[in-house]
Amino acid sequence: MNSFGKIFKFTTFGESHGKAIGVVIDGVPAGIKIDENFIQNEMDKRKPGKNRFATQRKEDDKVEILSGVFEGISTGTPISMVIFNNNQKSRDYDNIKDVFRPGHADYTYWYKYGIRDYRGGGRSSARETAARVAAGAIAKLILNELNIEIKSGVIEIGGVRAKKEDFEFAKNSEIFALDNEVEETWKELIDTKRKEHNSLGGVVKVKISNLPVGLGEPIYYKLDNILASAMVSINAVKGIYIGNSESHTLTGKENNDEITKDKFLSNNSGGILGGISNGDDVEFEVYFKPTPSIFQEQKTIDKFGEEKDFSLQGRHDPIVAVRGSIVAESMSAVVIVDMLLLNMTRTMDNIRKVYNNES
Amino acid sequence: MNSFGKIFKFTTFGESHGKAIGVVIDGVPAGIKIDENFIQNEMDKRKPGKNRFATQRKEDDKVEILSGVFEGISTGTPISMVIFNNNQKSRDYDNIKDVFRPGHADYTYWYKYGIRDYRGGGRSSARETAARVAAGAIAKLILNELNIEIKSGVIEIGGVRAKKEDFEFAKNSEIFALDNEVEETWKELIDTKRKEHNSLGGVVKVKISNLPVGLGEPIYYKLDNILASAMVSINAVKGIYIGNSESHTLTGKENNDEITKDKFLSNNSGGILGGISNGDDVEFEVYFKPTPSIFQEQKTIDKFGEEKDFSLQGRHDPIVAVRGSIVAESMSAVVIVDMLLLNMTRTMDNIRKVYNNES
Amino acid sequence: MNSFGKIFKFTTFGESHGKAIGVVIDGVPAGIKIDENFIQNEMDKRKPGKNRFATQRKEDDKVEILSGVFEGISTGTPISMVIFNNNQKSRDYDNIKDVFRPGHADYTYWYKYGIRDYRGGGRSSARETAARVAAGAIAKLILNELNIEIKSGVIEIGGVRAKKEDFEFAKNSEIFALDNEVEETWKELIDTKRKEHNSLGGVVKVKISNLPVGLGEPIYYKLDNILASAMVSINAVKGIYIGNSESHTLTGKENNDEITKDKFLSNNSGGILGGISNGDDVEFEVYFKPTPSIFQEQKTIDKFGEEKDFSLQGRHDPIVAVRGSIVAESMSAVVIVDMLLLNMTRTMDNIRKVYNNES
Amino acid sequence: MNSFGKIFKFTTFGESHGKAIGVVIDGVPAGIKIDENFIQNEMDKRKPGKNRFATQRKEDDKVEILSGVFEGISTGTPISMVIFNNNQKSRDYDNIKDVFRPGHADYTYWYKYGIRDYRGGGRSSARETAARVAAGAIAKLILNELNIEIKSGVIEIGGVRAKKEDFEFAKNSEIFALDNEVEETWKELIDTKRKEHNSLGGVVKVKISNLPVGLGEPIYYKLDNILASAMVSINAVKGIYIGNSESHTLTGKENNDEITKDKFLSNNSGGILGGISNGDDVEFEVYFKPTPSIFQEQKTIDKFGEEKDFSLQGRHDPIVAVRGSIVAESMSAVVIVDMLLLNMTRTMDNIRKVYNNES
Repeated sequence: MNSFGKIFKFTTFGESHGKAIGVVIDGVPAGIKIDENFIQNEMDKRKPGKNRFATQRKEDDKVEILSGVFEGISTGTPISMVIFNNNQKSRDYDNIKDVFRPGHADYTYWYKYGIRDYRGGGRSSARETAARVAAGAIAKLILNELNIEIKSGVIEIGGVRAKKEDFEFAKNSEIFALDNEVEETWKELIDTKRKEHNSLGGVVKVKISNLPVGLGEPIYYKLDNILASAMVSINAVKGIYIGNSESHTLTGKENNDEITKDKFLSNNSGGILGGISNGDDVEFEVYFKPTPSIFQEQKTIDKFGEEKDFSLQGRHDPIVAVRGSIVAESMSAVVIVDMLLLNMTRTMDNIRKVYNNES
Repeated sequence: MNSFGKIFKFTTFGESHGKAIGVVIDGVPAGIKIDENFIQNEMDKRKPGKNRFATQRKEDDKVEILSGVFEGISTGTPISMVIFNNNQKSRDYDNIKDVFRPGHADYTYWYKYGIRDYRGGGRSSARETAARVAAGAIAKLILNELNIEIKSGVIEIGGVRAKKEDFEFAKNSEIFALDNEVEETWKELIDTKRKEHNSLGGVVKVKISNLPVGLGEPIYYKLDNILASAMVSINAVKGIYIGNSESHTLTGKENNDEITKDKFLSNNSGGILGGISNGDDVEFEVYFKPTPSIFQEQKTIDKFGEEKDFSLQGRHDPIVAVRGSIVAESMSAVVIVDMLLLNMTRTMDNIRKVYNNES
Repeated sequence: MNSFGKIFKFTTFGESHGKAIGVVIDGVPAGIKIDENFIQNEMDKRKPGKNRFATQRKEDDKVEILSGVFEGISTGTPISMVIFNNNQKSRDYDNIKDVFRPGHADYTYWYKYGIRDYRGGGRSSARETAARVAAGAIAKLILNELNIEIKSGVIEIGGVRAKKEDFEFAKNSEIFALDNEVEETWKELIDTKRKEHNSLGGVVKVKISNLPVGLGEPIYYKLDNILASAMVSINAVKGIYIGNSESHTLTGKENNDEITKDKFLSNNSGGILGGISNGDDVEFEVYFKPTPSIFQEQKTIDKFGEEKDFSLQGRHDPIVAVRGSIVAESMSAVVIVDMLLLNMTRTMDNIRKVYNNES
Repeated sequence: MNSFGKIFKFTTFGESHGKAIGVVIDGVPAGIKIDENFIQNEMDKRKPGKNRFATQRKEDDKVEILSGVFEGISTGTPISMVIFNNNQKSRDYDNIKDVFRPGHADYTYWYKYGIRDYRGGGRSSARETAARVAAGAIAKLILNELNIEIKSGVIEIGGVRAKKEDFEFAKNSEIFALDNEVEETWKELIDTKRKEHNSLGGVVKVKISNLPVGLGEPIYYKLDNILASAMVSINAVKGIYIGNSESHTLTGKENNDEITKDKFLSNNSGGILGGISNGDDVEFEVYFKPTPSIFQEQKTIDKFGEEKDFSLQGRHDPIVAVRGSIVAESMSAVVIVDMLLLNMTRTMDNIRKVYNNES
């Protein structure tokens, strides 16, 4: 349940304020150059505390590789990576110890398990996504060798939509904005809501380029439904839309992508037909709810069933979609690698390619 | 890849115009009364050819149970169900034999596998969803015993949105319309587009009531991300949104569901917090693209790479969302049953409940 | 639970005297020529009623392919095969309806599930192994293309051990005997015990030749532990030994297989080191208990807890190891194919071999 | 591939002389008291360096829990445990860097992956089994609450068989001997072979008492075939036999366990019928080959294909079966817990027991 993938399969562990969080990736092919700087750089993209648009909490997110790499090369054995929590004991959680924060998983964890590590959200904290980024970094090292590129950025904040999709601009934007002309409006919106002790939702766009045709295993391990599973598993994500997010309002004539010798004439499908990549860019949108951690008074109950007027304290992201875009990108990377590996096994031709030299 | 679920796990097989399609369900608990009339009734809801809003193809969809049931009771062994195709040889597929229909999986199956059963779409045909409805029917027999109810209906067609969600009305509507006042408008829209040899997209709403708290296994087998996987695996589905589909435009204050002793004061979350059911109704929307099978001329290529001006013939649904609502309901049922079974194993308390009588 | 394998994964269904038994194989690579005569020929090897050393029951074991094959070639979609039971209603099971046959699964199925299809053993009947042979036949079609050969035969019956391992002789022996000089002794032993209304145990040897180095995925999906799982899952199998079955009595010096440029100087390891094939023949022994169905009076109880002096009637194999050798061979084939497919994904080199043409 | 189990599922990672080895256990039920002393005590049973019958290497095997436990109670989230390697850099592996030790996995890892962490055997080292014992300790905490007991001991060394099975004696024997009268003979045999720079094989017996009827999920996740998979996955194990290891030489009349109201009159079946526990003791034997690490000269080749006369140096167990008995016990524990959890979901009756209070 804490694992994702079939061949390239990772398992995460750890609580927000426990000793450590981490990930074990099974099924990493042998022979990949493991660039630790690249991995740490990926971690740093998601890391909090970098600017006023993310939580002011300081977390180092320093990754340590414990296994699976020898002399800088993957050996084919599980790669485990750990991020130790430096200041796990420093905070005071007395105010949320017994109470269920609205919009959070406190209530459901308590009633499901009968016990809850309340420190910083425990297992349900978005801090778990750091482990996903570490796994995604390994996946990207494989994709890099095949020239497959995954880009992401924020396409909508607080109901204000971007008019452009400039992934190059997004890379260097503090809020991963896809549209330089809307970026300032968004920043002001975030500032305003932050000062009101409130929060904002948003939409992330992901685009994957240079994929081979054939990724995705019908009927229940399609490229699109597994991307959907991957995205909706991310904290605060409520939805996904593959391809043109207006498709359900269009007619068949408008929505079908006609085909020529060289290319598809449009890409409403988001690069996926029948659950299989068609060689065009894979594109989709991911919908994030507003951060549930706000600093206004809210009605709730505690674990004894008593009603409370509750005010949260602490430091939190005014909008999770921003850092969420990196997580969406990382989860996309692991899905694509898993699909690449599975697809290798799907034809006698590929079997011959691999074994004719060896058997 | 053709299986879904962890404990209550089903595998489908079969091509649109092969000998048969079918499903094998593993993990069905022993001791369920298997009502064959109920199963056939579920099949009939999805069955084509009933009115002018669905394809005029006649398919009986008569289910035959081959195993797993003894004297009307499930035995705990796999239940296999088969639907034989009566008139598999009658049609002429010469016009699509070598050509890739725009918006269909013809192109991707061909390039992935190097071979394609072109008869009626083969494996990628929506006919496969009949097998899902059969599996869903078994799941519903379990849910019925626990008083868990799953309802569905159409909430939007061609960009026109319902203003009500009347699931009782939907049950008896020819197009499973959730709003009696919009139903007629929708029917006219469908008629118009059908006569123009075009098609329409739409949105389906699913609502699951009377769930226990605690369903969903974080972090990668959450209730919501598995529902997302289940829904997006359905033919023509491009997206899903859990809970209030405006959440990404709201603030935290607006979106959080406050809690009192008796209930949540709102249900923007769609009944899921941290991936676990909170006891409120689980609600979500499913976005269907327009039927790709239209009868207007379109540009495409054939398997030899030659460009064609292609005109499809035959009988097809003017809108797949309508019959799709039944499939969405069925897939929801299998997800919920799987989550019920998994959740049983998650506490020492439950272990004691089960084994204290026996060990 | 009724599935086996990771990529090449099959699921069986059906009860001994239900409507049908069958198998669905997922993960079959596209592009395999499916020779139905070969498949039926494999089925016939296991089929009962051919001579006096097997049960006199007549079962046709005629396989019908329902899906996954188009114009004689596998399409990459699930291959389902069904064997209908012709005379499912003809027998009278009143004498075993409520009683638990010693050595059979009647007792455990009843107490596990609270219900039991008592007709011919229901799901626990060795008839289920026909579905395994069908799956194994598809696997062998792949192995044939790679020149990998699986042979089997009987090496011990009733404590009398063969002195030779002549797999060519075994192929044409009525009892799959590996030693022509012991065959007659064994036949007489079987005849004697059969006439005494008793039964015999035995040992089967399997040998797999021409394997590439590298099959097997450490640590828990090793070639040897998955072969062990496959073998012990066969009805009446109580044990397995990989390589020289005296290894536990030897010293390291005696047991280690020394290595030269050309070959290993011995094969005590059974061709597997660290769970991975070393290129030498993979060899192992499989231990079958005597058929529990005997016709002498035995003490038992019925489902009401009452003690009975029970005498079984009907037709049964005097020794299951004989027909079991074919099942062991079939299960070996599916394990090897699964390992071949998994191993393809384990190095960056293989990834490049497959995708350099395509991406 | 580095994971074991379906619900109670653990994944191990780490190389013999890497930074750390460890395990992540998913599916641990919430509400278990996690006694760290008990866990460490289990580790210490397997730990090397305690007496002259095991390797003289000193490894602390000090377990650190990183997640999944809060205030001493399991929370239902993954429990990860790490054992850091203290002196990972101290040894000199130059003599085995390029050479393939006979009887070891060096050869197969090299040819499978194209790279090999040669330090102490890397991933293929028996040191990995420490992580299994940690997982087994958590499993035993669950079994303890249900009064299920797992015992093990050595029943044969160097071909000399015990005449008694005294599991209480074995607990305190330096070599886990099941027979006090043979213990001294065995010790002398080990001493002799150790001094000859040779090694010995042996047989371990495991006995599991007080199991409920019903554990094991036919047809491919039976209690016996999964125990077989678990056992043969242990380093140096070549075989397993369930129940009376002479069954294949017996007749049906001799081998069948007759049944009375109170009990089975014998236990040749080893407590398993049709793959399901029958309530009697589950018993099986596990066959270990002699330690391949011997200090006599052997022929081998290096990774350049050159032949070598090779002499290993270092410290190694003269017989792996001794410490292996603890690993067999641990693997048995995780199998039983997984089967307990799966079995909970197999009847409508159990579903009602769990949900009648909650839904």
